Amino acid sequence: MIELKRSVRNLKPYFVNQVPYRVKMDANETKNYLLSQEPLLEKIEANIYPDSDATILRQKLAGYYGCKPNNIMVGNGSSDMINLVINGFCETDDSVLSFTPSFSMYENYCVMAGAKLVKLECNADFSVDITSLVDKAKEIKPKIVIICNPNNPTGYYIEKRDVIEAIEELKDSIIILDEAYIDFGGESCVDLINQYDNLIAMRTLSKAFGLAALRVGCMIANEAMINRIWAIKFPYNLNALSQYYGAMALDRAYEVAGFVEEIATQRERLSEKLKSLNFEVYPSKANFLFVKHNRQDLFELLSERGILIRKMPINSITYYRISVGSEKENKILIKELEEIL
Amino acid sequence: MIELKRSVRNLKPYFVNQVPYRVKMDANETKNYLLSQEPLLEKIEANIYPDSDATILRQKLAGYYGCKPNNIMVGNGSSDMINLVINGFCETDDSVLSFTPSFSMYENYCVMAGAKLVKLECNADFSVDITSLVDKAKEIKPKIVIICNPNNPTGYYIEKRDVIEAIEELKDSIIILDEAYIDFGGESCVDLINQYDNLIAMRTLSKAFGLAALRVGCMIANEAMINRIWAIKFPYNLNALSQYYGAMALDRAYEVAGFVEEIATQRERLSEKLKSLNFEVYPSKANFLFVKHNRQDLFELLSERGILIRKMPINSITYYRISVGSEKENKILIKELEEIL
Repeated sequence: MIELKRSVRNLKPYFVNQVPYRVKMDANETKNYLLSQEPLLEKIEANIYPDSDATILRQKLAGYYGCKPNNIMVGNGSSDMINLVINGFCETDDSVLSFTPSFSMYENYCVMAGAKLVKLECNADFSVDITSLVDKAKEIKPKIVIICNPNNPTGYYIEKRDVIEAIEELKDSIIILDEAYIDFGGESCVDLINQYDNLIAMRTLSKAFGLAALRVGCMIANEAMINRIWAIKFPYNLNALSQYYGAMALDRAYEVAGFVEEIATQRERLSEKLKSLNFEVYPSKANFLFVKHNRQDLFELLSERGILIRKMPINSITYYRISVGSEKENKILIKELEEIL
Repeated sequence: MIELKRSVRNLKPYFVNQVPYRVKMDANETKNYLLSQEPLLEKIEANIYPDSDATILRQKLAGYYGCKPNNIMVGNGSSDMINLVINGFCETDDSVLSFTPSFSMYENYCVMAGAKLVKLECNADFSVDITSLVDKAKEIKPKIVIICNPNNPTGYYIEKRDVIEAIEELKDSIIILDEAYIDFGGESCVDLINQYDNLIAMRTLSKAFGLAALRVGCMIANEAMINRIWAIKFPYNLNALSQYYGAMALDRAYEVAGFVEEIATQRERLSEKLKSLNFEVYPSKANFLFVKHNRQDLFELLSERGILIRKMPINSITYYRISVGSEKENKILIKELEEIL
């Protein structure tokens, strides 16, 4: 099994005493006197540090993801967990391999850890070749390979059999499989965590659950891996309010399937509309569309009209990433585009 | 001015578009459909990423701390900010200097950053000498000096003039002044941030504000320093609920003075009681007491009776750190101790 970086191997988790108590005088908390009239804050004991193990939330996540609570570590967004894995495993100057374009923060996490992100170009149509990923990994021997599936910002989806091929071939690297957008129509690989001890899947409540404000994300991996990373996890890394509301949302997780189906329907409609306005629309399994247009100023023009999309300059061409909105929002976008174009 | 570590100097902050909008299609949020009946979550727009700049919260913190919002960066507890500063400034094998015993997580942050924590022993009575700190720093030239004031776990308070002496003498190091407990009776050095460009003060709502569940902490420094660190801050590092409630608590910050006065009164009473039970009680300006007793098994015995205190083994003696509770809680503690002893 791949070890944490040398400097951190002897770290012990921060001691958090979790026995039942009558009087709690061990963590220098005081009483909640400023917001004692807020019903929610009474419910969660605002003055006490959050459950550092997020026991209830992890139980509910485990139910949704079909694994055990001990396969899960939660954090302040899944990006917090990606950062922890990169910093925990990479020695200075170790390589991390990922496709480009992909989530831009991977680079920041690598830089902060002193690691080097090696970026493998997607194909011209933003599809990716697992074979070239595997070949590149065999050449540079990265400590970590990051696969974002579906990919942000392109929406490109790698079939599960191809992800498995990559994991099979890359047993000398940690595989971070960033599945932030997988609920929108892709097939997750979370069920493979006990087959591959180097696989870490990242999931979030920020996308398909519609709760980005809470910053609830998690990593899912085999128990030995989670235990190992537990030693370097910072205590109390997810506040009590986000744990509380995250758990409440998971009680209604049966509504997620219907919601993502609606997003998929809207995505296809929006895609057709954009094509009819001469956009090149790349295939997407996420809740956004990655598009190109001859007009390079659409970000600015839409922004003036109160519509925020993302511009993504790649090799001196400006692409756009557009979140799939509600039917009404998508119609407003199309109407404004019709006026502009 | 002291520079960030080489590898991160070219990082740019993650782009967060903050213009007003009608339709938001730039960040792949969806709608809040799972918890749409929760009044609080409607208020904060649960489906939208939190304000990455925490504009409102920082304004209110600035009001309380007597500085500008641009002097403040908020994070997931002040410990998150301490970690960011250590990781941002320390090259591999750089030294960080602090007293020992002090907050145990300083060591973990250093280890994670590949830095080396050099620990200077407190005196036998857990007081500290600024002169020896300065001498040690001149010898080992640390990138960062961490001063926890009042110190956790000892409660020892360094007079402001002595802190100033240290800052004056240590201009080649970043000074992290961890003032998590300063509200309980010490004099803060936040007013000095514009005089010393190497000074970073850490504050929190977890102690005197009684809101540990929220994980709201901040660093306070001159604007150039905050701007520099902004480039390595992770986006959305504080969730929207904690920002909302933190701001609400700050609207009632005028109640803090009365509360900490009550804690100080309780602290002195508890101290007297413990002394009468043959505890050695070290002077404390925090909301806890650091104590020693011939009996080395008090943590276990109190724990069996539902009372949590912290045990702190130092050089094979078990010390205890006891949070100052309410009058009622303190009485329960004393009653149980009377039965045990």
